[in-house]
This record gives sequence, structure tokens and C-alpha cells, in this order.
Amino acid sequence: MKHVSPLPAYLVKRYRGWKATSFAENRAWYRHLADEGQHPRAMIISCCDSRVHVTAIFGADQGEFFIHRNIANLVPPYEPDGNQHGTSAAVEYAVTALKVAHILVVGHSNCGGVKGCLDMCSGHAPELEQKSSFVGRWMDILRPGYERVQDIEDLEDRRKALEKEAVLVSLDNLMTFPFVKQAVEEGKLTLHGLWNDIGEGGVSEYIPEDKVFRPV
Amino acid sequence: MKHVSPLPAYLVKRYRGWKATSFAENRAWYRHLADEGQHPRAMIISCCDSRVHVTAIFGADQGEFFIHRNIANLVPPYEPDGNQHGTSAAVEYAVTALKVAHILVVGHSNCGGVKGCLDMCSGHAPELEQKSSFVGRWMDILRPGYERVQDIEDLEDRRKALEKEAVLVSLDNLMTFPFVKQAVEEGKLTLHGLWNDIGEGGVSEYIPEDKVFRPV
Amino acid sequence: MKHVSPLPAYLVKRYRGWKATSFAENRAWYRHLADEGQHPRAMIISCCDSRVHVTAIFGADQGEFFIHRNIANLVPPYEPDGNQHGTSAAVEYAVTALKVAHILVVGHSNCGGVKGCLDMCSGHAPELEQKSSFVGRWMDILRPGYERVQDIEDLEDRRKALEKEAVLVSLDNLMTFPFVKQAVEEGKLTLHGLWNDIGEGGVSEYIPEDKVFRPV
Amino acid sequence: MKHVSPLPAYLVKRYRGWKATSFAENRAWYRHLADEGQHPRAMIISCCDSRVHVTAIFGADQGEFFIHRNIANLVPPYEPDGNQHGTSAAVEYAVTALKVAHILVVGHSNCGGVKGCLDMCSGHAPELEQKSSFVGRWMDILRPGYERVQDIEDLEDRRKALEKEAVLVSLDNLMTFPFVKQAVEEGKLTLHGLWNDIGEGGVSEYIPEDKVFRPV
Repeated sequence: MKHVSPLPAYLVKRYRGWKATSFAENRAWYRHLADEGQHPRAMIISCCDSRVHVTAIFGADQGEFFIHRNIANLVPPYEPDGNQHGTSAAVEYAVTALKVAHILVVGHSNCGGVKGCLDMCSGHAPELEQKSSFVGRWMDILRPGYERVQDIEDLEDRRKALEKEAVLVSLDNLMTFPFVKQAVEEGKLTLHGLWNDIGEGGVSEYIPEDKVFRPV
Repeated sequence: MKHVSPLPAYLVKRYRGWKATSFAENRAWYRHLADEGQHPRAMIISCCDSRVHVTAIFGADQGEFFIHRNIANLVPPYEPDGNQHGTSAAVEYAVTALKVAHILVVGHSNCGGVKGCLDMCSGHAPELEQKSSFVGRWMDILRPGYERVQDIEDLEDRRKALEKEAVLVSLDNLMTFPFVKQAVEEGKLTLHGLWNDIGEGGVSEYIPEDKVFRPV
Repeated sequence: MKHVSPLPAYLVKRYRGWKATSFAENRAWYRHLADEGQHPRAMIISCCDSRVHVTAIFGADQGEFFIHRNIANLVPPYEPDGNQHGTSAAVEYAVTALKVAHILVVGHSNCGGVKGCLDMCSGHAPELEQKSSFVGRWMDILRPGYERVQDIEDLEDRRKALEKEAVLVSLDNLMTFPFVKQAVEEGKLTLHGLWNDIGEGGVSEYIPEDKVFRPV
Repeated sequence: MKHVSPLPAYLVKRYRGWKATSFAENRAWYRHLADEGQHPRAMIISCCDSRVHVTAIFGADQGEFFIHRNIANLVPPYEPDGNQHGTSAAVEYAVTALKVAHILVVGHSNCGGVKGCLDMCSGHAPELEQKSSFVGRWMDILRPGYERVQDIEDLEDRRKALEKEAVLVSLDNLMTFPFVKQAVEEGKLTLHGLWNDIGEGGVSEYIPEDKVFRPV
């Protein structure tokens, strides 16, 4: 496996710094987590985007949140076809094995995946329509959302609306999983939809009664 | 969408605390990230496990790492079949759009997904063998790794070895993606395999010459 | 004193968030409390259990309740023997110095201390019967309550009944303190017995006429 | 038991408000806590004083902290004499049954118990020296601390110093418990000393190297 390289020095340095400070000060907690296992209270589904740190926003410490991150924080519909569904596996594990009490779907501003979806659905990104485009096929999950925002004239507004649709489509798809639906109906699980404005540090949450996202 | 609930108060409190302190102190940087887009240096593929905070270990700040997290930090093989492959989409976006310089695959100790795979492959978890088990189907990716560790007698040792195989299988699979292979061969991308011992705060990296993981 | 460690970073973060938000918004009230002293209206005696937040249940703000928390919310009988009695000291201070108007004894479901007492009294926890077991000796206070519930057949019912006995035994013991008895008889102090069902969010109160706990 | 009274109406109202709002929104989490038990990360030992809300300061939510509150946040020395030691029982349960990773001893400004100790030790409170004074006997735990501060001239400074001694004496006494000492030495438990300035919203922590409390 000659294609594997040594860890870059800047990461080695940072790791050593962490080990000598944060880890050293919290050794007892890490020991506890290793010995006693994890009991996270919530699952968070957010984007891979390097600018979205839900751990920072919610002051998350080791052991608190089970976190799945993918492009555009999407959850596909329930499809038990024997294929590999990484997101569905994460949801299944969180709900049936860890029995988390909440699932938070966290979208964000300036999302590259959502922008790609917008370009693709409006015919401006033929490369994403190829069968061989993993990003294109992944963003297909958001097509139903595109239909609801395509008439918004201002491009910036349309993009923001589609970022929020990514949250709503995922919340809807979550309810197609039998074990999610059951846990929600039994009052053991709650679902939450959030959208993070990176530049403003804002967090809005979806208010189902009013069908809008409103600042927390 | 009446199944969506308001954000729990403890998270609202934490968010407000973050907004008034960390965000307020770094407003300029968040503004910059929103206006100029992300330019992450590396992609990290790690587990959803709540105890694994690579952002902490590598002192990651907003904007530095494009992070994909799934069960057991797995990458499936290249399979451009038109289906939804969330992990492959994340890798494609990181390498072809963001042009990251490194991909780090980070495994860890006490991994619940790997333990499930071990139980399944050794015949002790029939429920994971069902077509309808998303976790089971997802962990199928690691079956080739199981074959290489099944003769290790001590159960604890076998589990650790399989956790490391999860990293190696993923690194091998990464090279089956044409755009990854090309970037690696052109010297534009390096791949790295790590394993984090949660309780000890240890990080080992794969040394291809010696075919072992060695403490950083 | 080299065994003292720095505060974990996640608590430092949370403290800073609180200081910049809740504290900043209520600075005048904190100033007032510091300058004028405390004048709590009630004393609450509840369990150390992390799941029982009487401050949340009763919307307590800074300055309202004088709160003593111990294992299983127990009050020992009056015993002025010159030894250290932390609970008795708290009751004495609340009644004679602060002159609180109410004492609430708050029991709860799934109480680990009560479960230990049940195991011990029924002969299933010899380790708790050791002279050196602080938990065992502390739970001795509840032995008179065990005698009243030991004939309840269903184990779950027996445990719940003993949790309520922990409240009743404590209320009885409170009346053995001369200063409590006098204040109650002079109409300056009222005593209240509550039991909190954690999972249901229920609060029941003891109705002396009917000798039962009834939902509030 | 005719000395038990109905819950005051203002508390009934508050409880109903909580049930209909906070509880309703977090029902899933309460259900989880009831079904799965508590796994608190830390034990907090703080004063009964109504003005000290460590739950607020550290944004504690249900399930996070095992909290013991007594007069002046004191821990007596290890004394396995078969008597009832509520504080020792709480420490034993937290360390041996719950295996918490941290114990925080939190003192505070304007502490009435500490003021009583100062008066008593300097001969100005003969009533506290009675064998029958529970507060006096409880505050005896702090006598070793008084000796270290008695030469501070300014009364206000002397009181503050003794409030901090209450934290230090407790930390020392904690280490006399064999199970605390062992867990600390094995790196499974850390001890922390804090002092909260109520009016300023300040939190200082004890720095063993410098033998001072310093703002967090």
C-alpha cells in the first residue's frame, strides 16, 4: 500500500499539543468514555463543509453528540434494497442502538452542494447530470425541494430557500424510516430543523405551525 | 410537517453563549469565510461516534477541514452505477472541487460499527445479515478486512485489528476512484491512515513500509 | 495539593457563555443578591440524582430556594450528639436563621439509593450492610419505611412505594426537630411531600387525609 | 401525618407551566433518562445557598451533573464509623457506582455558613459552640481552615479567605477516602476547586502550582 503517506508535520505538532494539554486535563473523562461506552443525547446531521462547526455552536464535548456529516446534510428516503446506504445506517444505529432523544438536521448558508443542485436542476451543470457524477446523483435527493423554490426570482433568495429545503426534505425522509416514525410517535425521539448563517453566526429553526425558519 | 419540534432549551442556551463569546470574538473570520468561500487543506473521514473529535485532536478551526463522518469511517469502492453514494460524493467533491491536499481516514478504539461487523461475519448477529439492515449492509464494506483478522485468537486483539482494517480497506477503496488515483499520482494529494485510542488519547498512523500502525 | 486539576475546557466555555448572556442580562439582580443577602421563601430537600432538577420544575431563579440535596432526599431523626449531621445543619439553618416558610421533600422515580436500600433490606446486597458502606449506613434511615412496603409483591410497585416512603420518613423525622415542630405549630412553616416521575414529568403530592400521593 | 400541607399555589402554577412547555418539548429526553438511567459526567458539591446556581453557571441540563448541596460545600474526612454520613455517602455513590470523571467543589462569596464559622472560631458565637448546634458541629469541619486565615486583619478579606479554605479543606478531605484517592491516582477522576463571586458573576479556580484562586 505504497500510496499511504506520513502524517503532515503540522498535524503531528497539533496532535502533540492537544495530547499534552486538553487530553492531559481530561484524561479521566476519556478513560470513562472508553470504559463505559458512549451515551450521546442527540444525533446531528450536518454538512461536510469546513465552515460549519456544530460542535462549536453547541459547545459539544466528547461523548455528547453522534454526528453524521455528508454533502448538504441530506437524508435519502427509506430504501431497504440491500445496497450500501451510509446515511441510513447512521440513522438506524443512532435510533435503534443508541436510542438518541433528538435528531437535528443542520443546514447552512453558502452551501456548495446546494448550489450544485440548483445549477443542475436549472440545466446549467450538465456534468452533474452524468450517471457517473456522485455529487449529482447524491443531490438528486434534493430535487423535490428544487421544484418548490424554482419560481423564486432572486437567485440569492432561491439558493437560500433551497438550503432550507435540504433540511425539510431530510426531515420528511427521516419519517419514512419505520423505526424513526415509531420512536417519534412514541415520544422517544424528536426531530429538529436548523439553518446556520455562517457569516452572521445566526441559527434559525423550522417552525412547523408557521412553515418558516425563525431565528433561535 | 407536524413532527418537527422546537430546539431543546439547553441547546438554545449554549448557542446564545457561543454567539456572545466565540462568535463575537471571531466575527471577522466568519465574515471572511462566508464571503470568500471555503478552502480546506484536508478532508477527514471519521466515525460518527460521539467520542471521536478529530476537530479537537487536530485543533481544527472553522474553515480548515472538510469532514465526512459515517459509521466506522468507511469508504466503499468506486461504483458509478447511478445510485446514491454519500461517501463517494463527499470524496468527489473534496478532491475535484475543493482540491484538498490530504485525505485522512481516522479509525478508533471501541468502535460499535466494527464490533457489529465482527459479530456479523462470525455468525453471531443474524439480524445484521438481513437485507433490511442498513448497518449490516454498510458494514459489508469491511468484509474483506474480516478475512484478514479472523484467525487472531484473542477477541480484543481481533477487534482492534479489524478497526485498523477499516482504515486500510478504506484507503484501498479510495485508490479505486480514478480522480483520487490521478491526484495521488500527480503528487497533488496524499492519503493517510490513522487510528485513535480513545482512552489513551493515542494516535497511531499506518506505516506502509512496515505494514503496521505506529504511534505518532 | 497536587491532586487538584484545571477546570475542563467545556465547562470554561459554558461558564463564559453564561457570563456573557444570562449573567450580563441579570447583573442588577446578582448585585442585589450579593449586597442584600438571601431571603429564600422555601427549602427544598431533594436527591443528588442528575435527572431531578427541581429548579427547572419550579422555575426557580437565583435567590428563591435554599436547596439541600443528598442521596434519596432523606432527613435523619433529631440526634444532638455532637457529631456532624450535614442534613440536620441545613434544616437548622433554613428554619432558624433564614426562617423559610416551606420545606419541600421531593422524592423521585428510578432512585438508585432507594433501590440499594431495597436490595440491602431484603438481603441481596451484603456489601451495603458493611459498617464501612457510607451508602448503606445512610440508607439505614429508610429501614422503617422498608418494613411498611416489604409485603408488596410486584417488585416495581415495591420500589415506587419505598421511594414515597423516603419522603414520608423524612417528613416524620423533620417533626422530631424541636425548632421545626415549633415553627409548624406556630403556623410559620409548612411541610410538603412530593414525588417526581422522571419519565412522565409528573409530580404527585402527599395528601395526609387520604394517606396517598396524588398528581398535582 | 397531619403536619403535611398542600403545595402552595404559586408552585403548582409554576409546575404546570413547566409541564406544558419545557417538559413537553423535552419529553423524549426525560423518557430516555427514565429508561436508560443516569450517566452524569461530574459530581458537583456546592452550597445550599439560594443564590448559587451551578446548574445555571454551567448550563447544566437534566442528566449531566450529580449534585450534592450542603451548608458551605463541605466534605468531612473519611470516617467509616457506622454513623450516618450523608456527604460521604454521596461521594461514595458518585465515585464507585456512577464512576464520575470529575468532582467539582464550588464555594461562593457571602457564605452564611462560613461567616458563622468565623464568628464561632473567633469566640463571637457561643450558641454555635453548643453540642446541640448542628450548624456549629457541621462547621467544625472547617476549623483547620480557620487557623490558616485568622491572622488576616481585614475582616472582609478574612471571610473570603475562609470561603476558599472551605473548598481546600474539602478537597483535602476528599483525598482521605480510599476510593477517591485510588480513582485519582489511576487517572479516572479529577478534582477541581472553584469559588463563585455572586455579585460579579466571577468564577475562580484553585491553581495548585501557585496556591491561589485565579479567575477562569
